[in-house]
Amino acid sequence: EICPDRMLARLAELGRIGALEGGGVCRLALTEADKSGRDWLVAGMRALGLTVSIDGIGNIWGIRPGTGDGAPVMVGSHIDTVATGGLYDGALGVLAGMEIIAALNTSEARTQRPVAVAAFTNEEGARFAPDMMGSGVHQGALDLDEMLAVTATDGRGVVKEDLDRIGYRGDAAPITPAAFLELHIEQGPVLEQDGVRIGAVTGVQGIHWTEFTVHGQTNHAGTTPMALRRDAGQVAMRIAREADAIAADNGPPQVATVGVFEVSPGLVNVVPDHARLTVDLRNTDGAVLEAATRRLTGFAEAAAAEAGCTLTHRPLARFAPVAFDAGLVDKVEAAARSRQLSVKRMPSGAGHDAQMFAPNCPTAMIFIPSHKGLSHNVKEHSDEADIIAGTQVLLDLVCDLAGV
Amino acid sequence: EICPDRMLARLAELGRIGALEGGGVCRLALTEADKSGRDWLVAGMRALGLTVSIDGIGNIWGIRPGTGDGAPVMVGSHIDTVATGGLYDGALGVLAGMEIIAALNTSEARTQRPVAVAAFTNEEGARFAPDMMGSGVHQGALDLDEMLAVTATDGRGVVKEDLDRIGYRGDAAPITPAAFLELHIEQGPVLEQDGVRIGAVTGVQGIHWTEFTVHGQTNHAGTTPMALRRDAGQVAMRIAREADAIAADNGPPQVATVGVFEVSPGLVNVVPDHARLTVDLRNTDGAVLEAATRRLTGFAEAAAAEAGCTLTHRPLARFAPVAFDAGLVDKVEAAARSRQLSVKRMPSGAGHDAQMFAPNCPTAMIFIPSHKGLSHNVKEHSDEADIIAGTQVLLDLVCDLAGV
Ligand SMILES: NC(=O)NCCC(=O)O
Ligand SMILES: NC(=O)NCCC(=O)O
Repeated sequence: EICPDRMLARLAELGRIGALEGGGVCRLALTEADKSGRDWLVAGMRALGLTVSIDGIGNIWGIRPGTGDGAPVMVGSHIDTVATGGLYDGALGVLAGMEIIAALNTSEARTQRPVAVAAFTNEEGARFAPDMMGSGVHQGALDLDEMLAVTATDGRGVVKEDLDRIGYRGDAAPITPAAFLELHIEQGPVLEQDGVRIGAVTGVQGIHWTEFTVHGQTNHAGTTPMALRRDAGQVAMRIAREADAIAADNGPPQVATVGVFEVSPGLVNVVPDHARLTVDLRNTDGAVLEAATRRLTGFAEAAAAEAGCTLTHRPLARFAPVAFDAGLVDKVEAAARSRQLSVKRMPSGAGHDAQMFAPNCPTAMIFIPSHKGLSHNVKEHSDEADIIAGTQVLLDLVCDLAGV
Repeated sequence: EICPDRMLARLAELGRIGALEGGGVCRLALTEADKSGRDWLVAGMRALGLTVSIDGIGNIWGIRPGTGDGAPVMVGSHIDTVATGGLYDGALGVLAGMEIIAALNTSEARTQRPVAVAAFTNEEGARFAPDMMGSGVHQGALDLDEMLAVTATDGRGVVKEDLDRIGYRGDAAPITPAAFLELHIEQGPVLEQDGVRIGAVTGVQGIHWTEFTVHGQTNHAGTTPMALRRDAGQVAMRIAREADAIAADNGPPQVATVGVFEVSPGLVNVVPDHARLTVDLRNTDGAVLEAATRRLTGFAEAAAAEAGCTLTHRPLARFAPVAFDAGLVDKVEAAARSRQLSVKRMPSGAGHDAQMFAPNCPTAMIFIPSHKGLSHNVKEHSDEADIIAGTQVLLDLVCDLAGV
């Protein structure tokens, strides 16, 4: 059985690392705050008796041995956050893993398979694109050397240098577990609206991130007739509005977000000659998503040409929709039911480390409700009772899969 | 007669202060580069025997005495630039004034009225809004204390502190000249397209700068359905596109420019909760301009409300259209003709220091052509022959008005 106080105390403790004034946390990947979180986590793993490994992209995992020598059952998530993040996105899944180890230790339980707890590097993709970088490399979907060379979205930092600086570029070989489980907050409004305690996640929608850069010509805001302008800013705004129109035209579950938008030189009376924006498009239907991205890039090219501007665009992330293991999703549902918890099957709107494991081993996820569906927001919140319930379901599944 | 080499040498010399690699200058108001430009100018004025005064907003003027004690004939412009400026915007008018003094000195000419050369603080409005700040204060259209309290558009710096830092907060009393003349590059394409050497500027179009700030709510780009978002970025983009639509609907001479556009937190997968933009609207017709600004602010309020966001907006500049003195504009035309220079009457698209003098004394402006109409661009250029021609016309007018 898990111990609620111990679990909640760990969540609060990690939440103080990178805490923002007024609530929330900023523990962006590979920053000093991330390093502090990692140091704290590794110390905690060692205190629980785990053998800690770190791979070439900085993923951390600790293993509790089993009685047999099969592949471990792995639980995990991430401890990096966005710049305006909450206490639960990622941290919940890692610390639930720590709680499970503590519970197994306390009851002196032996499992047949080893049990591993993992924290993956840069799941958020907030400082470095793509997201799910660590788990993607670990499971072979992303190339290690390519990812080490990635420059921060704001131009400040490179993955390899930052890993070296914080001392988390290891050399452990990646492992493929017998099964992978991730507990996570839903980050959306569905469970709360439906009054359901547990989500049995059926899969993750596809994610396409694209960066657009527009070059035009600076000129005087007062003397330059509209017809003679090469306004990079207005082209970028048309692209941003087209992303919104794509979401409206496709309808749910299509979403479109323009999160990064910069113009320069950024002066009131100067027509901008340079603009950069990112568009995040997602859909559960891979073909619809591909078409959405094609429509957007096609529109962008035409809009730039019309305005006498030049355009470049590059994919920052391309993840096809992922379906989780049907048998394991059934087990999540059953485990919730046996604890008298209401449960519903649902897709995930967010990307998760689990999706990188899905092609290689039986994988599933457990969601718990998010207050008002808020996430990537300092007010992100989940009820203690739900946190404990989710952790308990995770423990039950681990015991089942690892064989207590 | 003016001396072309001396005039061009001064332009080149000032152009080296704040020079950008690859061409152009950045001499933003009240920065170190502006201070260096001012120091160089004041030294040059003193070397020409002028009595230098500096007022409370940092305007600099030097006076060459006349034989009588009437008000001076003043010529002037500004030496501040935008961040990506050229060598001629502003500098031309100030240095033509210096050349006129040098020419009068060389020929030992005595004028009845004193002749003054002025450089006004922060004409560009690039770091601090509004533009024409120095001349506006000097001529009583803007309040000194209010302007001293203005914070930089990028939040870094306050007018009063920066003036004190660079040592240019003086205490000379403003003066109202007998007449004010400003030589300036056109900054637009008209003279070049029409093959005309001199513009006799009839007035300046109205200028409305408005800053919009939108607040919404950060949320997750993958899990938050479009209908539940409070996306400050998309609201701001709608406002920006509406500005463009206003220009299209009104047709020329309406122009609309979104020069500043920021979203935060600025992360790929986070719905922005904050956005800020500026809109620069201009029209020669004051009533049409007022209506354009009303349409834009009304639209912005509705767009924000629709998206569940809050909006604030504030005027950064409000200048009504200005007509120059009909008699003096005639004189500009006549002076150009007597030098066998083609001339046409035209309105100004840009704001100018001269417009702040227009309500208080006979005022006019002389334009020379800009290559390809480029300005507020490092490639801003005007032909040497045109620079010299414009300076000669200015000298002829000063001699006429000051009484040689
Ligand atoms: N879970 C989560 O917030 N992941 C970040 C990657 C994304 O979905 O944008
Ligand atoms: N002449 C000039 O570029 N003035 C700056 C003010 C403006 O027109 O925006």
